[in-house]
Amino acid sequence: MSGNASRSWVDGANEPHGFGVTHLPYGAYRQAERGWLCVRIGDYLLNLADCVAGGLLNDLAAEVREACSGESLNALLGKGPAAWAALRARLGELLGETANGQLRQQVAECLQPMSGADLVLPVEIGDYTDFYASLHHAQRVGEIFRPDNPLLPNYKHVPIGYHGRASSIVVSGSAITRPWGQSRPAEGESVPGFGPSTALDYEAELAFLVGTGNALGEPVPVDQARGCIFGVALLNDWSARDIQAWEYQPLGPFLGKNFATSLSPWVTPLAALEPFRVPAAIRGAGDPAPLPYLLSAADQTGGGLDIRISVSLSTGASRAAGMAPMEISSSSTRDLYWTVAQMVAHHTSNGCNLRAGDTLATGTVSGPARATAGCLMELTRNGTEPLELANGERRLWLEDGDEVLLTGMCVMDGVAVVRIGSCSGRIGAAAPARR
Amino acid sequence: MSGNASRSWVDGANEPHGFGVTHLPYGAYRQAERGWLCVRIGDYLLNLADCVAGGLLNDLAAEVREACSGESLNALLGKGPAAWAALRARLGELLGETANGQLRQQVAECLQPMSGADLVLPVEIGDYTDFYASLHHAQRVGEIFRPDNPLLPNYKHVPIGYHGRASSIVVSGSAITRPWGQSRPAEGESVPGFGPSTALDYEAELAFLVGTGNALGEPVPVDQARGCIFGVALLNDWSARDIQAWEYQPLGPFLGKNFATSLSPWVTPLAALEPFRVPAAIRGAGDPAPLPYLLSAADQTGGGLDIRISVSLSTGASRAAGMAPMEISSSSTRDLYWTVAQMVAHHTSNGCNLRAGDTLATGTVSGPARATAGCLMELTRNGTEPLELANGERRLWLEDGDEVLLTGMCVMDGVAVVRIGSCSGRIGAAAPARR
Repeated sequence: MSGNASRSWVDGANEPHGFGVTHLPYGAYRQAERGWLCVRIGDYLLNLADCVAGGLLNDLAAEVREACSGESLNALLGKGPAAWAALRARLGELLGETANGQLRQQVAECLQPMSGADLVLPVEIGDYTDFYASLHHAQRVGEIFRPDNPLLPNYKHVPIGYHGRASSIVVSGSAITRPWGQSRPAEGESVPGFGPSTALDYEAELAFLVGTGNALGEPVPVDQARGCIFGVALLNDWSARDIQAWEYQPLGPFLGKNFATSLSPWVTPLAALEPFRVPAAIRGAGDPAPLPYLLSAADQTGGGLDIRISVSLSTGASRAAGMAPMEISSSSTRDLYWTVAQMVAHHTSNGCNLRAGDTLATGTVSGPARATAGCLMELTRNGTEPLELANGERRLWLEDGDEVLLTGMCVMDGVAVVRIGSCSGRIGAAAPARR
Repeated sequence: MSGNASRSWVDGANEPHGFGVTHLPYGAYRQAERGWLCVRIGDYLLNLADCVAGGLLNDLAAEVREACSGESLNALLGKGPAAWAALRARLGELLGETANGQLRQQVAECLQPMSGADLVLPVEIGDYTDFYASLHHAQRVGEIFRPDNPLLPNYKHVPIGYHGRASSIVVSGSAITRPWGQSRPAEGESVPGFGPSTALDYEAELAFLVGTGNALGEPVPVDQARGCIFGVALLNDWSARDIQAWEYQPLGPFLGKNFATSLSPWVTPLAALEPFRVPAAIRGAGDPAPLPYLLSAADQTGGGLDIRISVSLSTGASRAAGMAPMEISSSSTRDLYWTVAQMVAHHTSNGCNLRAGDTLATGTVSGPARATAGCLMELTRNGTEPLELANGERRLWLEDGDEVLLTGMCVMDGVAVVRIGSCSGRIGAAAPARR
């Protein structure tokens, strides 16, 4: 055995693109009328069912091989951390420089270029929960609506969340149609408006995919909660602020959100993010300690993640001019007020059951400075202060043809060692009126 | 051919129990390690897979026969109204008095007594949406929290709804464990409470099961919306009011609801409810007309349903005394402000997709008088005025051992022609503290 296990023999895989052999995110693609699970290495896909068929995973449990041959990740997610670790270790052997020539030849038969692959959602999502884990986001949104009292009294005690829509989660790259909806009656009017949203926004979020879950009635203690999570992906929780503002009292957001949510096709396993663990966000001097069911020493020490999320916009005009997407903000998940372990512990504290494939998202990831805000509502103060784009255009909200691109990276010594699979969506015109 | 097609030859099926041959609700039960679809006739179950195997459904499309042989109703729901009608007509032939002796003998081999059957949820629910369709409920809850301004300005324009939790929907009869959760800090305290809920409530609701659904981006017009719905079932949206009150701002109810939702195992097809259609609730003189996308003449004329829902309670003491469950309220879905067609049209107005098996519930069904309120929050004015039970006990909220039973019926000429499958759940003690 020779070579470096953290480098790969696959063509181009050691370039600094953030998809090297220490990353290996999971995905799925459609080909020949079915879905196939894969991992990504550089610009190649490794087909897991082919690996099973070729005998390359024979040292793993039969149920893991069976899960790898399926069309979605759900079965694998349900197998738990030991199975995930065994599979990941074996994939590292297959793709690392230490693999011998014969093995490389066998593995090469399971590889195909990613270019042109029809990537699909790799998971069947039973329930989708969206949190509100960024204090900075909550604070700035609160300042818009309640300037005297921006932060509600529950925020620093409760990891606030709500249930989103699972059916309308679409894979990155899917077109996003501007939704119709009701909006507040105009000044002096008594009848609400009904038409295409004029306040369309994005929300840059990180999604956590549940692995093993829990039985109904059995809360997951905070010190075991991280172990429930399989991996992460970038998520854009598209939001129609005019619809949301009119509908959300008293039961929360509904049609302002559920017309579409975009998810990256790539799920980065938590195991690949171990080097990027950071302490839970430091609480300020006046902030309350988390209640005991949300407090674990290990979580406080290393329950955060430093994933830098960048939001870029391309417009019809910028694309026509051949410009790359224009960055409009960047933030890091290290600034979130609540950790994923706290979200899981809270979510299950009443006995609610999480199932393999369920998705928990952070809510908008915003940092302390306004330029780090993860949505237009914050960047434009609810559509009142235009955002200047690099090409001279201005935006209050998203216009038709605008494409939002979320990218994520984990940096070590100035190098993006891991890039989280990107998430994009372009706004299409609203459907014409029916009458 | 002789006999009356609206009477059945099955033993006891013509007794006035509301499960005659004009009803035929669908369900599922587990036996020999798998689930079986069935319809209920009196106190018997007709196994649909056995009917297929016995050639009794040979006149139906192959895909309908296949759907009948599955373990959940989802495939059948997705087949659409023509398939549902064909199956229902054939089941009527098999079970009606017009069936000849040979046919009866064949059908009898597919029947089994319901007693002792392990009834399970007959449907896989992708997304669960809960509405707030009772104006009377919204009004009385509003009076508790905002006495000067009980009804929010959006209520009479927007069929308010929110997404609930699908994973924790359980079949009627499942034990309901009292949840733990955070509650508002006590007067003079700064730290919230965390413990078993002390304000546990039920909500009597009617659930609508989506049949065909719609593609993402394609709203269902209100005049076609009723056709999306396959049938109805009773639902109890258990609610921990103390958890809910502390968490629900600004994103709506979450852990106060998602610890459990009980659903009847019996789905009454809308076709069985045709005789009980009523006009949409009459709007008052000052009430706004529904916006055009929520308005259809046919829906206004016959989009309501007159299903009487009764809530009964049995307690440890009442059961020990041999008492039947004590009725504490009754109401009718005819008093709802919004019809199911309006809920579907609104839900999909932004392009949100509904899938076969998705469940839309009405929210608490309350009538105009306080005695017709469908939850304890209204009956006890948020736990401040005790409810007197028939056995002399009093309740502010549910106690351990209390069992809530929802029953429903459709009455014609004073007779309960159709009884909607009941929905019950008994409160079990909270889990012990973990530390």
